Amino acid sequence: MPSYMREGSTMKANPVVAVCGATGAVGQEFLKVLHDVDFPASQVRALASARSAGKQVEFEGCGQVPAGPITIEEMTPESFQGVDIALFSAGSDVSKELRQAVVDAGAVMIDNSSAFRMDDDVPLVVPEVNPEDVEWHKGVIANPNCSTIEMVVALAPLAKISPIKRVVVSTYQAASGAGYPAMIELLEQTRAYLADEEMVAEKFAHPLAFNCIPRIDVMMEDGSTKEEWKMVAETQKIMHAPNLGVNATCIRVPSIRCHGESVNVEFESPVGVNQASMALAFAPSVEVMDDPEQNVYPMPAMLTGKDYVYVGRLREDSSNPNALSFWLVMDQIRKGAALNAVQIAQLLLPKE
Amino acid sequence: MPSYMREGSTMKANPVVAVCGATGAVGQEFLKVLHDVDFPASQVRALASARSAGKQVEFEGCGQVPAGPITIEEMTPESFQGVDIALFSAGSDVSKELRQAVVDAGAVMIDNSSAFRMDDDVPLVVPEVNPEDVEWHKGVIANPNCSTIEMVVALAPLAKISPIKRVVVSTYQAASGAGYPAMIELLEQTRAYLADEEMVAEKFAHPLAFNCIPRIDVMMEDGSTKEEWKMVAETQKIMHAPNLGVNATCIRVPSIRCHGESVNVEFESPVGVNQASMALAFAPSVEVMDDPEQNVYPMPAMLTGKDYVYVGRLREDSSNPNALSFWLVMDQIRKGAALNAVQIAQLLLPKE
Repeated sequence: MPSYMREGSTMKANPVVAVCGATGAVGQEFLKVLHDVDFPASQVRALASARSAGKQVEFEGCGQVPAGPITIEEMTPESFQGVDIALFSAGSDVSKELRQAVVDAGAVMIDNSSAFRMDDDVPLVVPEVNPEDVEWHKGVIANPNCSTIEMVVALAPLAKISPIKRVVVSTYQAASGAGYPAMIELLEQTRAYLADEEMVAEKFAHPLAFNCIPRIDVMMEDGSTKEEWKMVAETQKIMHAPNLGVNATCIRVPSIRCHGESVNVEFESPVGVNQASMALAFAPSVEVMDDPEQNVYPMPAMLTGKDYVYVGRLREDSSNPNALSFWLVMDQIRKGAALNAVQIAQLLLPKE
Repeated sequence: MPSYMREGSTMKANPVVAVCGATGAVGQEFLKVLHDVDFPASQVRALASARSAGKQVEFEGCGQVPAGPITIEEMTPESFQGVDIALFSAGSDVSKELRQAVVDAGAVMIDNSSAFRMDDDVPLVVPEVNPEDVEWHKGVIANPNCSTIEMVVALAPLAKISPIKRVVVSTYQAASGAGYPAMIELLEQTRAYLADEEMVAEKFAHPLAFNCIPRIDVMMEDGSTKEEWKMVAETQKIMHAPNLGVNATCIRVPSIRCHGESVNVEFESPVGVNQASMALAFAPSVEVMDDPEQNVYPMPAMLTGKDYVYVGRLREDSSNPNALSFWLVMDQIRKGAALNAVQIAQLLLPKE
């Protein structure tokens, strides 16, 4: 993992890390990932709303922090004194409200919300794709949308073979993208369906059990959803490719926490399947699982808790000699959110 | 509904109809649809394997046939004497085995299997798209694959605005595509998952509950699946467009009997959203459900038993000025199989 230093300031080798939104699905995963990568923290603090303050969250330890429960503190503008890295996943409103307090405290906010992703003064970073962008941060680094991360991790190694002209992607997004209560809602709806009881839909506009819902996030003026717009705008920003064409259709499906993506990529010139497969096999955070004859391909239900973007069904496109199609699966909470954010934090660590 | 007469022979106004494979999901639906369209049959016979012979199937009546149970007969080469129309859904092997017997008996086989679809002497018909092709049948008319029917019903009215150059489609296919036992398997796997028991997968290569399986049917040499190949070859044949580019990715999702499709269409020239929406609204067997701001769009769980192809999320494609994207849902057993076949039979009826 490369490391980068913020110009004019130096991240401590053993920073104090605050997990902001510690009770949510991503917040819980931040704590797991900090342990899994053994992040060299000197302290890990857990912040959440007043409602959760005083409760404890389990933590398995990392760096200089021993394993043991952490008592949740109420997250206020005063929370960030002494914090070096604040991992945020508490929604856009909370991120906007606390941004200045984090920056004033001299901490770096790594924000999982969509609040600042398209701001000109905020880098939007996928460490495998544009790690160098952390260098110009001004106190805030944005973590991209999960569906975008999944796609660009696979596109970046392919774009090195031939520039990408256009991507047509359709997603198969799990309940987890709408948070932990949405995962519970899917399971509860499914139970109700099997028991012939009425299904309750609160987190989704319609019951998701045994269904597909073709709208994620709010509608934009051009008829796309904001989720679809994110896959266009964020991909262009991360890949430094403002003219890259992306057409996204984002569909919620009844899987629990891994997103699938059906991707068609048109290159400037023909790219062979073997060449693409090799590039993906050697790319960071990508694993090729591609032996469909033997029923080997990535599947959401089998990749929960995994750290990579998994690629299968790679093949030529008979409708365009410059195009390839493939299928991706990624744990939406892990590489799609918490892991990517912690990897951004790793980029900030001083070179050893 | 237009009607067509077979050259050199005339279908009776009140034909004898044999439902072949009467105990399967599509066979059962044949009987429902014959009733629903009040097909003017003089007799309806139910044929199935020896195992089911002697059992009874419910029938609500149609034409000159009163409501009441029908006793299943064993399907043999001798079964077709006196039959005028044989609706087949008993798998490719059975269709191949019995084709000659059906033709020798002077009946028309309308076959739901993939056995003859690409044969040069067999029309492949979607009544809304290429009804005229029934005229040159030689005793066998093929019913297309469900995913193909869904797509071409929506493509045909759009192709009248501007010729279609290329289609990129990703499917969200329900368990029903693999038959009635597969639907039961999905429900049983789901129950087992919720009860923390082991899931059994026999109809699918992997458990489908809370999962997506990116392979349907056998693998072809070019890395596509046969299901994907069907969407290419069948679409070209039905639309009489041998050079139409189609890139299909076919994914099984845990819905029960309606298929979703995310479709991107590139035309020869720009087509406006309003123009396309109007063409679809007036197209036969299409219903536009497109008010996503109000959460109105087609969804698999809400369209079971419906007869149309439902279109929503119609929008421009910022990556290509000549392209549009939209989302389709269709009941796979109904318009995707049984209804389309009965509509082909309706085309054969003599003009009144």
